[in-house]
Amino acid sequence: MADISMNKARVMIRKALQKGRELELKPLSVVVLDAGGHVKAFEREDGAAPGRFAIAQGKAYGAVMLGMAGTAQMQRAEQQGYFMNAVNGVYGGQVIPVPGGVLVRDKRGVVIGAVGVTGDTSDNDAICAAFGIEQANLVAEI
Amino acid sequence: MADISMNKARVMIRKALQKGRELELKPLSVVVLDAGGHVKAFEREDGAAPGRFAIAQGKAYGAVMLGMAGTAQMQRAEQQGYFMNAVNGVYGGQVIPVPGGVLVRDKRGVVIGAVGVTGDTSDNDAICAAFGIEQANLVAEI
Amino acid sequence: MADISMNKARVMIRKALQKGRELELKPLSVVVLDAGGHVKAFEREDGAAPGRFAIAQGKAYGAVMLGMAGTAQMQRAEQQGYFMNAVNGVYGGQVIPVPGGVLVRDKRGVVIGAVGVTGDTSDNDAICAAFGIEQANLVAEI
Amino acid sequence: MADISMNKARVMIRKALQKGRELELKPLSVVVLDAGGHVKAFEREDGAAPGRFAIAQGKAYGAVMLGMAGTAQMQRAEQQGYFMNAVNGVYGGQVIPVPGGVLVRDKRGVVIGAVGVTGDTSDNDAICAAFGIEQANLVAEI
Repeated sequence: MADISMNKARVMIRKALQKGRELELKPLSVVVLDAGGHVKAFEREDGAAPGRFAIAQGKAYGAVMLGMAGTAQMQRAEQQGYFMNAVNGVYGGQVIPVPGGVLVRDKRGVVIGAVGVTGDTSDNDAICAAFGIEQANLVAEI
Repeated sequence: MADISMNKARVMIRKALQKGRELELKPLSVVVLDAGGHVKAFEREDGAAPGRFAIAQGKAYGAVMLGMAGTAQMQRAEQQGYFMNAVNGVYGGQVIPVPGGVLVRDKRGVVIGAVGVTGDTSDNDAICAAFGIEQANLVAEI
Repeated sequence: MADISMNKARVMIRKALQKGRELELKPLSVVVLDAGGHVKAFEREDGAAPGRFAIAQGKAYGAVMLGMAGTAQMQRAEQQGYFMNAVNGVYGGQVIPVPGGVLVRDKRGVVIGAVGVTGDTSDNDAICAAFGIEQANLVAEI
Repeated sequence: MADISMNKARVMIRKALQKGRELELKPLSVVVLDAGGHVKAFEREDGAAPGRFAIAQGKAYGAVMLGMAGTAQMQRAEQQGYFMNAVNGVYGGQVIPVPGGVLVRDKRGVVIGAVGVTGDTSDNDAICAAFGIEQANLVAEI
């Protein structure tokens, strides 16, 4: 398996949103990117701010392009801020280096995409992303 | 009603894709933008090329921002190419002025967003978008 | 197979360059992009102009992102120039819609990347790209 | 000698990758830029994240354009962050100021290009780049 099917993407989004409702989080937005960092599917809940697509995408995009999940990106940004700034330069400013950008791996460990969630705290966003990924029988790296 | 709910967006996407399968079209990608031109939901079928999100978005974005559906944009582009080029300048190059960008109006005629479809011929793309909109009890302007 | 290995990429580049020498073409530059449009390998022959990387990449990038090889892109550009201009807008101006951007398919027909060649006439560029792809036991769509 | 030949570029890349395998590093990506900062050759190992071309290029690009290797750039970034930010402004955001961007000098000391390596720690990246340069009978400045 080297790709995320549309059906898997739907499951990941639905389950991530369901987890957000269970935890009574703010309205969430969830994107699924493929192994090349390209948008496969997206949904924005009613009440979420209009610009949330770009935030969700930015969290997931950096994860795929660097092969590094949001938590690791945030640590690097805190230790060596100019490096993550420079990374954003070469990626056209499309990277949001915080939790909520979660790598999706298949059972063999190969990165096949990423899920980006935004709307609540970064940590809660990441919990919902990981839940969606696991419900699709894939492996999450937060 | 001034907004497209997430449920309506899901219906529009599912029905547009269903129509594509009925007509045996190539794999489609479908985006729903809200009344501000911002992404509400998106799905890309398996087998569609990776860059199709940007094409779908570009069709729908011009429709919302100009209040002019894809067919009218194409006519303008053919008659007065420099005008649509200039429009693209002020909109950051994000407009694809061909059929498949379909305006969504509520029952009173107010524009509440747009659907963008890409993957087959522009005319077939528009048919699928309009079908999805109508199945959600909204009014399509192709 | 959903990816181009580094070894396959090397074969494609070497064989494309070898074909160029056989045909006594001008110095060539050859890029291999993966299924997400990202650079896997590149070589520029001695004597080629310094800016040839971007031309090779632009030919291959549009092919992957649209799922449409250079010849088909050129036909579209000639019939509906404003459409290909608009496509370039949404892809950040990274598309060169002429022959020499050749799709790479695996034996089942799935697009797994593209080869971009530049340096001689567009038609000769495409011949070299296709030769390299075939020598790697993959299928070329010019 | 004012230029890196394609054969020298191949040697530098092969040897840098060979060193990475010897040291059991993560999958590496290696770019060679010429004396004008333009891409001469590149390879990305299987398993490396898709966005690694831009990181490798950014490391090498700053080295050539400033005539300052990655280690010196990093020191400057840590001492005077606004300066390296401003440098990135004038170079279009294409500079990654960390080790792994290694200057290539000929025997007379003239800068004829740079090698950029990414994938493991910055220090390990630089070791591999320097090894490749030395194996091509050129002089590395880390």
